Amino acid sequence: MKKFAAFNLRKLPSHAPQGMNKEDSKRKTEQLQQDLVELQNRLYAENRRSVLIILQGMDASGKDGLIRTVFSGLNPQGVRVHSFKEPTSEELAHDFLWRIHAQAPRHGMIQVFNRSQYEDVLITRVQKLITTEEARRRFVAINAFEKLLQQSGTTVLKFYLHVSEDEQRQRLQERHSDPTKQWKYEADDEGKVKKWPLYRLMYEDVFRHCNPGSCPWHLVPADQNWYKAYVVAKIVRDTLKEMAPRYPATKKERPKE
Amino acid sequence: MKKFAAFNLRKLPSHAPQGMNKEDSKRKTEQLQQDLVELQNRLYAENRRSVLIILQGMDASGKDGLIRTVFSGLNPQGVRVHSFKEPTSEELAHDFLWRIHAQAPRHGMIQVFNRSQYEDVLITRVQKLITTEEARRRFVAINAFEKLLQQSGTTVLKFYLHVSEDEQRQRLQERHSDPTKQWKYEADDEGKVKKWPLYRLMYEDVFRHCNPGSCPWHLVPADQNWYKAYVVAKIVRDTLKEMAPRYPATKKERPKE
Repeated sequence: MKKFAAFNLRKLPSHAPQGMNKEDSKRKTEQLQQDLVELQNRLYAENRRSVLIILQGMDASGKDGLIRTVFSGLNPQGVRVHSFKEPTSEELAHDFLWRIHAQAPRHGMIQVFNRSQYEDVLITRVQKLITTEEARRRFVAINAFEKLLQQSGTTVLKFYLHVSEDEQRQRLQERHSDPTKQWKYEADDEGKVKKWPLYRLMYEDVFRHCNPGSCPWHLVPADQNWYKAYVVAKIVRDTLKEMAPRYPATKKERPKE
Repeated sequence: MKKFAAFNLRKLPSHAPQGMNKEDSKRKTEQLQQDLVELQNRLYAENRRSVLIILQGMDASGKDGLIRTVFSGLNPQGVRVHSFKEPTSEELAHDFLWRIHAQAPRHGMIQVFNRSQYEDVLITRVQKLITTEEARRRFVAINAFEKLLQQSGTTVLKFYLHVSEDEQRQRLQERHSDPTKQWKYEADDEGKVKKWPLYRLMYEDVFRHCNPGSCPWHLVPADQNWYKAYVVAKIVRDTLKEMAPRYPATKKERPKE
């Protein structure tokens, strides 16, 4: 979780640190989830602030699984997940933040972005859809956008789920054999692995340019699902604990919905 | 759960039938929720159909609690809750189904409506904002709307949570004393109880006019939370089981998102 002066994803650990124990971590994660249930109730009742959780990571880094593991158990009335897919023609006819902004959380909510505005400076660059200059302009726009959200009561948490090339290759391979995962298999999955080095460079550029002290990236070793879940649950719980949302004393004290 | 030729909410039971056991029902509900997790995974993976769950009921009938009890545990990526509040001026500048339609579930999703289009033929009539003729026109529009959804792959489940006047009065009273509920207390809560008979009449009119065999209301005795949760969980589980969603064999077989 430490910050790197110069980001080098090759040197970033994708494994849990020595001494971390699977069973122990799972138990801790369950405790964190119980804390989250109560904190979310308070956040929802308070209705003044919100949390935005941004999940990025290479294909097969386990974003879907993380959402299921960490956020199942929360009251669905107070949590919302939005998966950003390939933009529609309507979305492409607007600036790149238009569709993102529309999904910003309202007061009281925990919003999870499965992929996000960062795809517009990642896959777009890998596919050479935008120039480096355009990417630079987008970095500035993203920083301003996240600041706006923060100034409006939204706590923004950015997670990069870091899997190694080997682990990614193995997971994509599993999609062939597991009948509950076959539907995720794509013909160009092999191509994706080959593009790992290019994605790595583009991610490193994101971490250089969109990483202010007020809204840093959390780089999460993600080769082991249990460790990844623990790290994210811990950061989300600690963040909510620090926000210390509280039940309004009366209806009047609560902002009208 | 039986159908009434002439709806008379005064005669509708608000209690669990004799012989229903609390601990037993809770255990069964837990089992149903486990089934739901797997069925939801399949529905999401299949990405061809969806489920819309409409929750209606008097104030303090326990809609929020039901959502928490029955739907916590589901993968939040595949379930979405929308609470319809007092309409905004933008919403009022459109037909009454405009804001509802915008929240219809996309393929693969379970969508829960906390209140719904039915408020537009309930509170609007109690407050005399619309005429009986307008209410009749809206009934027709609602039936056509729900049919449209059904024909497009959405299974619509409508639940009315039925609490007795006594139970409602007691629950509203509790909002004074429970610090985790005080924020729900409203100055006119007493007035709401007084309006029960009027709401009752308007609900009965809904059940007469918007209750086709293809999209019936489920009238749920709701004085006991454990029984209410069991009934709703059972109907939702059975419905999904009958839909029998299945994992696509390949990505190609799955409709593109």
